[in-house]
Amino acid sequence: MTQFARNQWYVAAYTTEVGDDLLGRTILGEPVVLYRSREDGRAIALADRCVHRRFPLSESRREGDSIMCGYHGFTYDRAGACVSVPGQTRVPRTARVASYPVVEQDSLVWIWVGDPAAADASRVPRAPHLVDPAMTTVRGMEPIDADYGLLVDNLLDLSHETYLHGGYIGTPEVAATPITTEVDEEAGVVRVSRHMADAECPPFYARSTGIEGRISRLQDIEYFAPCLYLLHSRITPVGRSAPVFRTEITYAITPSAPGKVYDFWAVSRDFAVGDEEVTAFLRDFNHTVVMQDVDALNLLQRALDTEPGPYQELSINIDTGALAARRILAALAAAGTGRADA
Amino acid sequence: MTQFARNQWYVAAYTTEVGDDLLGRTILGEPVVLYRSREDGRAIALADRCVHRRFPLSESRREGDSIMCGYHGFTYDRAGACVSVPGQTRVPRTARVASYPVVEQDSLVWIWVGDPAAADASRVPRAPHLVDPAMTTVRGMEPIDADYGLLVDNLLDLSHETYLHGGYIGTPEVAATPITTEVDEEAGVVRVSRHMADAECPPFYARSTGIEGRISRLQDIEYFAPCLYLLHSRITPVGRSAPVFRTEITYAITPSAPGKVYDFWAVSRDFAVGDEEVTAFLRDFNHTVVMQDVDALNLLQRALDTEPGPYQELSINIDTGALAARRILAALAAAGTGRADA
Amino acid sequence: MTQFARNQWYVAAYTTEVGDDLLGRTILGEPVVLYRSREDGRAIALADRCVHRRFPLSESRREGDSIMCGYHGFTYDRAGACVSVPGQTRVPRTARVASYPVVEQDSLVWIWVGDPAAADASRVPRAPHLVDPAMTTVRGMEPIDADYGLLVDNLLDLSHETYLHGGYIGTPEVAATPITTEVDEEAGVVRVSRHMADAECPPFYARSTGIEGRISRLQDIEYFAPCLYLLHSRITPVGRSAPVFRTEITYAITPSAPGKVYDFWAVSRDFAVGDEEVTAFLRDFNHTVVMQDVDALNLLQRALDTEPGPYQELSINIDTGALAARRILAALAAAGTGRADA
Repeated sequence: MTQFARNQWYVAAYTTEVGDDLLGRTILGEPVVLYRSREDGRAIALADRCVHRRFPLSESRREGDSIMCGYHGFTYDRAGACVSVPGQTRVPRTARVASYPVVEQDSLVWIWVGDPAAADASRVPRAPHLVDPAMTTVRGMEPIDADYGLLVDNLLDLSHETYLHGGYIGTPEVAATPITTEVDEEAGVVRVSRHMADAECPPFYARSTGIEGRISRLQDIEYFAPCLYLLHSRITPVGRSAPVFRTEITYAITPSAPGKVYDFWAVSRDFAVGDEEVTAFLRDFNHTVVMQDVDALNLLQRALDTEPGPYQELSINIDTGALAARRILAALAAAGTGRADA
Repeated sequence: MTQFARNQWYVAAYTTEVGDDLLGRTILGEPVVLYRSREDGRAIALADRCVHRRFPLSESRREGDSIMCGYHGFTYDRAGACVSVPGQTRVPRTARVASYPVVEQDSLVWIWVGDPAAADASRVPRAPHLVDPAMTTVRGMEPIDADYGLLVDNLLDLSHETYLHGGYIGTPEVAATPITTEVDEEAGVVRVSRHMADAECPPFYARSTGIEGRISRLQDIEYFAPCLYLLHSRITPVGRSAPVFRTEITYAITPSAPGKVYDFWAVSRDFAVGDEEVTAFLRDFNHTVVMQDVDALNLLQRALDTEPGPYQELSINIDTGALAARRILAALAAAGTGRADA
Repeated sequence: MTQFARNQWYVAAYTTEVGDDLLGRTILGEPVVLYRSREDGRAIALADRCVHRRFPLSESRREGDSIMCGYHGFTYDRAGACVSVPGQTRVPRTARVASYPVVEQDSLVWIWVGDPAAADASRVPRAPHLVDPAMTTVRGMEPIDADYGLLVDNLLDLSHETYLHGGYIGTPEVAATPITTEVDEEAGVVRVSRHMADAECPPFYARSTGIEGRISRLQDIEYFAPCLYLLHSRITPVGRSAPVFRTEITYAITPSAPGKVYDFWAVSRDFAVGDEEVTAFLRDFNHTVVMQDVDALNLLQRALDTEPGPYQELSINIDTGALAARRILAALAAAGTGRADA
């Protein structure tokens, strides 16, 4: 199992998911309840277990910006301090649930469940295209019953598009074209590029851009370990320099618990902006593509869980990026900090 | 996990559940088959596993007062002695399943799965209101996927009525009113009282008694560890001494297996006796209340099962009764006998 | 749990199940993919896990007689050698999945997942009646969530027909009639015979043969450990020497994984050959009988899985054959070879 790197920022939710209702999520094994302040509109994240008898606060109800436990009424303010208990006026001084640092940025709610002293909001990685008014974004989130490392493997090696997503986003050229990989171990960033000069245009792009012939297709991955993955996609009719269709594909990979991962996905485009038909097509089509990954990773995890004995993997050139990502994740987990060199 | 106290009487069933059909129950991890003798009408409880290959006798069929195993026909008389095996006339002398002491009392079938020599029928606790002709009783049983200690906690601290059962049996006064607790460690009895002089009348009582205004409400709990819980409830229109509406709420808490408990519940009233409409209302309404507990405890157990690490509880005044109950249960489990001082 | 004897032939499928589609089965804990060559029509069995990242090849697709992994396109020829990987021309020399020896005989696909050097096709046991043109066969396969030893127990002691299959194939005489048992420990064969001179004719035979009165009924079991079980059945109207209705009941008992077994079953008859009505009756009726065993063994395994402590079995004369089978299986597992004396 891929170890968790605790002292890191992770995406807990989309900003639009965090509102008046209490939202329960599990981040790196920690149950968390998320909601939005009625006073100042800020997102709040508290430990999702009452100190009294461990009842989930996400199954409770709000009293203004406080949460009143649904079992015995222990009430916590937005900072996690217990402000009221039943049957007595004195509130025990130790009655408090953890409050987690939260940063809302680029339509994402980032959370830090590690050592709060180490939380540095300035290190939250950016995905500004998600809120760029010149782009239109579709998105979703799928929980997967798989080690989060399997999702990292999946995304760092796009040769699987040819086989798992053939007829959707994959074409023979993706697997056939060699990659170049750059690794910044210190910054914890992996970059994998695949540039196809003359490739079949897959339905994903043919139907959204209207291109009918072959394309030049650039795939430039940036993985900011452990959570944020950006795929910068540029396509152009083959042999031409314009128009360039720009698509930014975002994934946030958040380990939920051992063997469970949240797969946040988004597709942002700078063409057909605001075109509802294209938006609906890309939302449905990419959801189908994501579910192909979800099904494959659920299946793969079940296969690994029933391995009769130890086994070896066999890695080749296409795995260079994923193997670098694994090394960085291992270093982050071992360090317990936000930096591989800490 | 709360340890089992084996040398104790537990409710295995209602007397009406034990009849001609074979009834399988698991008591403290022991599979038991229950049925009623056609000869003398007495309840019979045998170990629910054939000595031959462990097939459940409860999935078999009766031959008079004997059970013939549904797999290979080993036949056991009502005392558990094997009286017939297939293919040969000689029955091995060791062929016998355990027969458990049973006491039928107050409409309950009590069983003893501990050391038979220690079973003392005179120590079965009483709940005579269940068969009092001057009262009407509704009842049921719900299995819960939770440690039985969670149900003991739940019932010994009624402040949860305000939060979990608000709009049903809880009102603000329940949680707000301090309790008095009496513990008889030697007898294994915990008494928790909460007397509300001027309280809102919850729908449970408003609709069954017809009271329209506020009430005096007395809750007097007697818990005879480990199994029998009685809540003596008395309500009166506020400021008056009559009429007094008497309700006896009975629970039998029977550990089934680790993480599983049977929740037997009954509500007996001395008003609107025989009134079918009130009976139907109380049966449905209390079933809803019990299911609120069942859902909460199932949820709580799942939360505890996925705790990422060790945790602490935080107890306050309302927990005095439940903590006393835990101490008594621990002593009973450690002693392995029916008495904390044994 | 009954240990697996690895160096043995097991039935993986019926020959008709192995065709153009990829068929995934798990044999002794080893995931296997089965398919049929388009070149020479032979059955092929490979390890069902890609060497790259363990993706199941049975969830992939064929390229002629090769399989191309559905995740990243690693391609394996029919011998298991990897012949193509994505993004590069060089195929690592170690890229290979296991290819299992296979023998097709008597309509069964036999597989050897043990030491390939020890695989001796001449030792595959025979069941020629399955392909005898003078007989008609109905058959099926049911997976059971039970230790395969429970199915061996079940089949070696037919006294259970009287109780579990009463009204189908069992009558009182089966359980009442003593057995004779012959054990050839060296060859790994157990023979159990039960000859009933004057027995009730169960519906299974009454409806398929048209016999209206009582019968002479011979049951002669041959169990070729670990996998092949034959029940030679002969019935005749009582007191007559003809006609003799011959039925061959075949079981192949293939351990799939710990606590899981494949139950291949077939019924071959030499009467009403080609009679569709009799064929449909026997197929449905025997399926019902098999499902009675499946339900009982699933139930029994769940009972064993929740035993609160250690337990003893009690064996009698009827168990002689099953106990001999257990001894042989233990010896085969310990030896790891195809012979108890190895």
